Amino acid sequence: MFNLEKQGNSVGFVRTEYLDAGDLALECGEKLRNVRIAYETYGTLNAQKTNAVLVFHALTGDSHAAGMHKRNGRKPGWYDLAIGPGKTFDTRKYFVVCANVLGGCKGTTGPSSINPRTKKPYGSDFPLISIRDMVAAHKKLVDHLGVKRLFCIVGGSMGGMEVLQWAVDFPDSFDTAIVLAATAKQYPMGVAFHDMGRKMILADPHWKQGDYYSAGAPRKGLSLARQVSHITYLSHDTLERKFGRNKKERHGSRPPKFGTEFEIQSYFNYQGQKFVRRFDANSYLYITNAVDHFDLTSGGETELCDVFSGLASQQGKKPKFLLVSFTSDWLYPPAHVEELYAGLAEAGVPCVYKKLDLPYGHDAFLVYNNTLGNAMVDFLGRERTRRK
Amino acid sequence: MFNLEKQGNSVGFVRTEYLDAGDLALECGEKLRNVRIAYETYGTLNAQKTNAVLVFHALTGDSHAAGMHKRNGRKPGWYDLAIGPGKTFDTRKYFVVCANVLGGCKGTTGPSSINPRTKKPYGSDFPLISIRDMVAAHKKLVDHLGVKRLFCIVGGSMGGMEVLQWAVDFPDSFDTAIVLAATAKQYPMGVAFHDMGRKMILADPHWKQGDYYSAGAPRKGLSLARQVSHITYLSHDTLERKFGRNKKERHGSRPPKFGTEFEIQSYFNYQGQKFVRRFDANSYLYITNAVDHFDLTSGGETELCDVFSGLASQQGKKPKFLLVSFTSDWLYPPAHVEELYAGLAEAGVPCVYKKLDLPYGHDAFLVYNNTLGNAMVDFLGRERTRRK
Repeated sequence: MFNLEKQGNSVGFVRTEYLDAGDLALECGEKLRNVRIAYETYGTLNAQKTNAVLVFHALTGDSHAAGMHKRNGRKPGWYDLAIGPGKTFDTRKYFVVCANVLGGCKGTTGPSSINPRTKKPYGSDFPLISIRDMVAAHKKLVDHLGVKRLFCIVGGSMGGMEVLQWAVDFPDSFDTAIVLAATAKQYPMGVAFHDMGRKMILADPHWKQGDYYSAGAPRKGLSLARQVSHITYLSHDTLERKFGRNKKERHGSRPPKFGTEFEIQSYFNYQGQKFVRRFDANSYLYITNAVDHFDLTSGGETELCDVFSGLASQQGKKPKFLLVSFTSDWLYPPAHVEELYAGLAEAGVPCVYKKLDLPYGHDAFLVYNNTLGNAMVDFLGRERTRRK
Repeated sequence: MFNLEKQGNSVGFVRTEYLDAGDLALECGEKLRNVRIAYETYGTLNAQKTNAVLVFHALTGDSHAAGMHKRNGRKPGWYDLAIGPGKTFDTRKYFVVCANVLGGCKGTTGPSSINPRTKKPYGSDFPLISIRDMVAAHKKLVDHLGVKRLFCIVGGSMGGMEVLQWAVDFPDSFDTAIVLAATAKQYPMGVAFHDMGRKMILADPHWKQGDYYSAGAPRKGLSLARQVSHITYLSHDTLERKFGRNKKERHGSRPPKFGTEFEIQSYFNYQGQKFVRRFDANSYLYITNAVDHFDLTSGGETELCDVFSGLASQQGKKPKFLLVSFTSDWLYPPAHVEELYAGLAEAGVPCVYKKLDLPYGHDAFLVYNNTLGNAMVDFLGRERTRRK
């Protein structure tokens, strides 16, 4: 077995690159002008262009998936645990690409970008975007890179939804797909939690209908929105192990009534504060809205098995899926991932399903662990051999 | 088996009564003056005073557990499904008592009550209260009613925590205890969700440090707080069955961006609106704070088995417990209820534990179903016979 812990080299110093991708016709009917896509690549594209891996980030991620932005920097990319020489996505073998999503705030065009028509940030003039639009933007990047067939598309949570949308929209463009803790549609509990967050942002007087860029951002609302969602990413086990009922150390006086007394309160306050420094409230609105509208079955009009028929009808070596659910993920629980599995299986799309007994909740797909690492390494290794 | 659905008589027209219970020394060290307790009773206390059942309501409940306040009224008390002639708590056999908790806003002294010192509502001058204080207030009521030994104490969620606290504080005062979807301490995820709600109330400019009674209440904050908690009471199954991804019927124009589009959004908006009409924001702060501080192990200083030693050492017929958890309850999951079970078992306190496979989430204890009804009826029936 491949041991992640024994291998841990970094891809080193990296820079974000930008593609001016032209106009993009959106699912809502509007056209987005002069779309720019921020992306990073790690490893080298082989001469046959058959070793590319496209990584989709989750809700609030960005294109900086591995390595460091500053020489001797301390904070590596968000998926550094899995991308690098000797790691799951071994950059000695694979050419790994990660791009910031459309609607984001980390270099790809989003509501905080300058509207070419007004020369001001879009704010609420930014059109509603969908997971399909995000994927269409990424497709422009992959075309630009000259890759006709990706070896692997991979993502967790919203990233997994993008993988699924990509697979449906471009069924002949990839060999393998890895979908982690993601489902074929957003279920109502997920909508409800996201909607809570959006209402908190909209209730913040600083939001100003989305046109806050020249004044102060709705930091309080965004912080609360993030905190609610952050709870849903974690498990009882994680919270109990990390915090239990420990109280914050206090020097001097008692905390104010309803103030921060337990470490768990302090933790989420900190997470909220940290988040508002790195994320745009409008991007949060647009991206959560895209996730909430994600539904491969179009409101039940199409059966999953029919949605995947384009994949099943591929000639030659069909694309193969690895689906992963986590027992402690109560936000995207195994039962919901298994509905997706059933749809792929019924369509006759080759698919491996792993329900992993990990205690980390929904965030398990981002947590360093051999169980998931090995499942992906095994899957990729076998498919790499088969498809040579 | 006793079939709840075949029996459904109401206790009929009922009135809330009030006990002026004098002063109450609180756990925080302060004394609350002229405490008033709102309560209702159903059925008749027998001559030996051995048939009393004390029902503890959950977070936002009140003393109106059964029957109607208006003749020909349409909205029965919150536990009408289980209290009445021929029901689980059969009022032909039992004398059922339910009181509003200390800190509440439905007749029992709370932050919206008049502070006898200032002649104005307490607001944030109201002292911090605990589950133990709530139970101490209820004990005054039971003493007033002349009941030395209750046949049963019963409650779900926070009500179950009160049952446990009562059992520890007054181990010789009851024959049976029923604890539904409750745990020996509040676990960190519960603290985190409650704290989110409190932060939303505190972030509402109408909160005004709790002194909003002469102006408008922090309705927005309270509504959001309720909505977040309400999600945690439900299950994926319930939400999927009731709402799925159904969209609200719209007549005319498209919804505004990030507005209410799905029925699930509409549902929680409505729940929030409904809640602010019946509940006080300060009561919400004080009561959730009491729950979050509930911990029979005192931060791990005492082992549960020692906490329950007073119960185990009772002479004669020891009090017996029925603990119930629900498989779909992800807020107070079976694993946490089982930690309580282990504590009672180790102490040698007679205890029956039922893990019920019901799809309703945490709210299962409030949902009309025979599975839970029969479990309680069987338990009560057997104990009633044994103790005659």
